[in-house]
Amino acid sequence: MRILVLGGDGYLGWPTAMHLSAQGHEIAVADNYLRRRLCREEQVDFLYEVPDLNERTALWQSVSGHHIAAHIGDLSQWDFVTEVFEKFSPQAVVHYAEQPAAPYSMLNRQAATLTLHNNLSVTANVIFAVREFCPDAHIVKLGTMGEYGTPNIDIEEGWLEVEHKGRKHTFLYPRQAGSLYHTTKIMDTDLLWFYVRTWGLRVTDLMQGPVYGIFTAETQHDERLLPFFSYDEIFGTVLNRFVVQAVVGHPLSVYGKGGQTRGYLNIKDTLNCVRLSLENPADRGELKIFNQFTEAFSVNDLAEKVREAGNQLKLNVKIEHIENPRIEAEAHYYNPIHTGLLDLGLKPHYLSKEVLLEMMEFVIQYKGLINKDQIRRNVKWN
Amino acid sequence: MRILVLGGDGYLGWPTAMHLSAQGHEIAVADNYLRRRLCREEQVDFLYEVPDLNERTALWQSVSGHHIAAHIGDLSQWDFVTEVFEKFSPQAVVHYAEQPAAPYSMLNRQAATLTLHNNLSVTANVIFAVREFCPDAHIVKLGTMGEYGTPNIDIEEGWLEVEHKGRKHTFLYPRQAGSLYHTTKIMDTDLLWFYVRTWGLRVTDLMQGPVYGIFTAETQHDERLLPFFSYDEIFGTVLNRFVVQAVVGHPLSVYGKGGQTRGYLNIKDTLNCVRLSLENPADRGELKIFNQFTEAFSVNDLAEKVREAGNQLKLNVKIEHIENPRIEAEAHYYNPIHTGLLDLGLKPHYLSKEVLLEMMEFVIQYKGLINKDQIRRNVKWN
Repeated sequence: MRILVLGGDGYLGWPTAMHLSAQGHEIAVADNYLRRRLCREEQVDFLYEVPDLNERTALWQSVSGHHIAAHIGDLSQWDFVTEVFEKFSPQAVVHYAEQPAAPYSMLNRQAATLTLHNNLSVTANVIFAVREFCPDAHIVKLGTMGEYGTPNIDIEEGWLEVEHKGRKHTFLYPRQAGSLYHTTKIMDTDLLWFYVRTWGLRVTDLMQGPVYGIFTAETQHDERLLPFFSYDEIFGTVLNRFVVQAVVGHPLSVYGKGGQTRGYLNIKDTLNCVRLSLENPADRGELKIFNQFTEAFSVNDLAEKVREAGNQLKLNVKIEHIENPRIEAEAHYYNPIHTGLLDLGLKPHYLSKEVLLEMMEFVIQYKGLINKDQIRRNVKWN
Repeated sequence: MRILVLGGDGYLGWPTAMHLSAQGHEIAVADNYLRRRLCREEQVDFLYEVPDLNERTALWQSVSGHHIAAHIGDLSQWDFVTEVFEKFSPQAVVHYAEQPAAPYSMLNRQAATLTLHNNLSVTANVIFAVREFCPDAHIVKLGTMGEYGTPNIDIEEGWLEVEHKGRKHTFLYPRQAGSLYHTTKIMDTDLLWFYVRTWGLRVTDLMQGPVYGIFTAETQHDERLLPFFSYDEIFGTVLNRFVVQAVVGHPLSVYGKGGQTRGYLNIKDTLNCVRLSLENPADRGELKIFNQFTEAFSVNDLAEKVREAGNQLKLNVKIEHIENPRIEAEAHYYNPIHTGLLDLGLKPHYLSKEVLLEMMEFVIQYKGLINKDQIRRNVKWN
């Protein structure tokens, strides 16, 4: 299948591109290095240097024999979108090309405007491009479990049948997010669902939880194929951050009471979920929604797991409850359904002590390069 | 009260500005004449010429003694927003500054992009400006009943309490609209609701139905104070269009079966609803939502009423069912609650034969200027 991976330079975009390439698919990636630019602007480093997309695709070809075409440009600009879609004529599009960090979106007005404009413009351009150049192509869009927020009832998988005053209707599950970034993902869903109904697009919207991990089958070839690894509070995901904090002797920074519960998954499972979605495409005029995570943990649960693993490595890990910079419930009901991808055959990689030890032992190699000042950035929601 | 009316040149913005000015409020309007520009580009005329905002505010001052400050500029540009908010320091903001036409938003990619970008950028800028310059100001935002679509259960007023598997949660009423324009209004609601919760803004979101009519108490002073009146299929609202069609002997163009039911209101009631919302502001951190219409009619109902009134004027009105260019249910359940504004004291102006006759007799004066070729524009949803 010809699969276009948008945001193919990112933490998940690049491993996804390699994974699909390794499966024998014809892959093109597009990216404008936005994530790298924002990290530079905010003065936060990756744990290790990451080669650019031209270098990575060349390296991937040398180790795997598979070609990935790299298009460098801004997908919020229609000219570039046209060029990529016309040249590659994709049969499927995996859309990761968004500003992906909740704290970044809450940093200031400029960052909020960039997030809103970038994310909505790219999603709209993907919709218009598929309509114009490849109307039968399947769009696999990365949404977030954060779109649902923390309602006091079970979070169903995308849809909710409501019985009200003796009548019934099935709605898109109502969404209410905790950051502007997450809110742009709600807006993406609004937009995709409208054009699915109106233009008969094929879309799968993946409500993904926070991802952790570094290694995939494809990164085993060469460490230079590893994805970005951010450990700062703006761009790092929570478990990755905790692992780095444990390694450098920084207390694990739990916000408030730490009862905030979310569904998590290993980066390996992200790749499998996207692949399964591509192998089981939505029909014309169908929006498929999957809740993409494998296990639910509170922040306290995660901190405790990292402490246990760290102490096995004699790291003497401390946990600190700090004032919560976010506006969120610190104790809440949380029971999201997530059977759709399991039914398609997902075999989860659960969060074991071995997984944590493997990450920690890897991070320990870079201990001397970790800048402790970058860990806490104190982006306040209010 | 110092009230800033954004989109103050528009069909509803200008009459609202005059109405609030007549009540003794201090009013400023801001507009970039987007609506006039789009009408020019799409080659559709207003029924009669409308003076620009500087002329209208001068005329209003001469007939009423009240000053309205006019700011001409683009609210999607932060510099202009800053200038207006700093200078005027509003206590309330009425936000009409959006591309308001569903068919325009479905015209082509450029029009869709303009609608998405304009509407979201202005709403975001209003939020950021209130936060920065006047955090206690009350935002009254014009949404649309179209945000709800046509679900098979009652449309409650903004919120829906759901009982599910023995637990309960009150959600923002789930939204699913029928055009890109309407979808941008859903996104506006998503955005406003997020920042209400996070920054404690005061917001009233008015889910307004299609408006009809021309005359308000303030337009009685001088015909040059009348609002725009569009009769083309892109920018005209349905009842206004039917009245013009009846006058020029064009069959009333009912899309499909004509069972599409919506809640309508007279332009006089729009002004009263906005005034009542301003007089009963949301608290800090509160999103108030009202369903703003006075009567529900199917398109067939409206056509029949226009035919009856027209025939009383010997216009020999015909009704034509044409292929529906939209993707929408032509027969559906529709029972939206709309008690909130009535409870605040709204005294509706219902759609009587007298109202229709007054409109028709007014339109007849311009009969020779009506360009029949502009009536049908055939903007297809798919």
